[in-house]
Amino acid sequence: MKKAICLMSGGLDSTVAAAWTKERYEVYGLHVDYGQRAARLEREASKRVSQKLQISEFKSTHLSWLKELGTSALTDESISIPRGQISLTDQIPITLVPFRNGILLSLATAWAEVVGAEAVVIGAVEEDSSGYPDCREQFLIAFERAVELGTRPEIDVRIVAPLVHKSKVDIVKLGAKLGVPFELSWSCYGSGPEPCNDCESCLLRRRGFDGAGISDPLLDR
Amino acid sequence: MKKAICLMSGGLDSTVAAAWTKERYEVYGLHVDYGQRAARLEREASKRVSQKLQISEFKSTHLSWLKELGTSALTDESISIPRGQISLTDQIPITLVPFRNGILLSLATAWAEVVGAEAVVIGAVEEDSSGYPDCREQFLIAFERAVELGTRPEIDVRIVAPLVHKSKVDIVKLGAKLGVPFELSWSCYGSGPEPCNDCESCLLRRRGFDGAGISDPLLDR
Repeated sequence: MKKAICLMSGGLDSTVAAAWTKERYEVYGLHVDYGQRAARLEREASKRVSQKLQISEFKSTHLSWLKELGTSALTDESISIPRGQISLTDQIPITLVPFRNGILLSLATAWAEVVGAEAVVIGAVEEDSSGYPDCREQFLIAFERAVELGTRPEIDVRIVAPLVHKSKVDIVKLGAKLGVPFELSWSCYGSGPEPCNDCESCLLRRRGFDGAGISDPLLDR
Repeated sequence: MKKAICLMSGGLDSTVAAAWTKERYEVYGLHVDYGQRAARLEREASKRVSQKLQISEFKSTHLSWLKELGTSALTDESISIPRGQISLTDQIPITLVPFRNGILLSLATAWAEVVGAEAVVIGAVEEDSSGYPDCREQFLIAFERAVELGTRPEIDVRIVAPLVHKSKVDIVKLGAKLGVPFELSWSCYGSGPEPCNDCESCLLRRRGFDGAGISDPLLDR
């Protein structure tokens, strides 16, 4: 079976992406703690999900650099997380972590080169999301080209984003169809102990479940 | 003055690249300790160089991931560093660290986005080097395209590799012309205390100085 590295944040999108990957590849899950407020909860969630999905290997690694840089509400405690609204405008929100997906994809690509994986899977969502530039398909296509040229010639690593053009509603529906353990995931930008139900990530998640007509087992447990 | 992030390993190439950058930009130097054997010596060298060049800011950050992955003689102590020869063949050497430049450029790009730098400078050398795929100009061009698409639209970060088509001899000559403090740099793959003068990096360095007819103050001190 072909191998894939799957980036796992423990959130809704990457959990559905991991379940999608499991149906097609031998999965190597990678969680990165980059100093985000929810790092511990995300790591625990992605580990729980990886166990439930019975993937081949799960690794969590720590990267201090993005917290050292700050400037994002996710990594800089002096910046408040916006509450009560989904932006979805042309404005890039304060939760943007600079070039995060470029960094995460680079780390995953290194692992792909080591184990000979043919894909790096990322749960990036372009339209129905927060408008981060590094979640757009054109970025992912350009990054794939760089990976092709920057790795051993005998390696051919694809960047696969199965959700990139899906709405949150469709992601929830796909997850339900795949039997995704939604109750094990964690989407909130905050550090718990319960989801705040008020940050953009929680609001996007709720809109997805509401639109799909499915009850969210994380909130309804 | 325009700003540039300059990747600094403390070695010959990146030290010359930093001096080149200093003549054109306000320089932000970044050293990454990724668990390479020479990490401490490289960090000290790059810090000394950054002080000598009086750059605006110097940061060193730690990344454990590449050491966790192993598979390179530079990060995996169970693999011996090749001695006594320069490969320069089509074979990629065992010192290859998977997608290292992709990772380093991603980390530097994040800083560029934060400070509004217009360039990320890397001392990558294509021909007269160890044959790493992520040192080739076509990789750097592809990566620049990914950076363009994955960062804020108002940001325009170029990937600049001033040495990519230079020989080691020309790099030494350029360094001498720029008054580079060669004696502060560290090229050896080993962990010291003195350069081994026998690994590929030491041999390439010596060939550069010999060919340029310049004495290497690191070895002749």
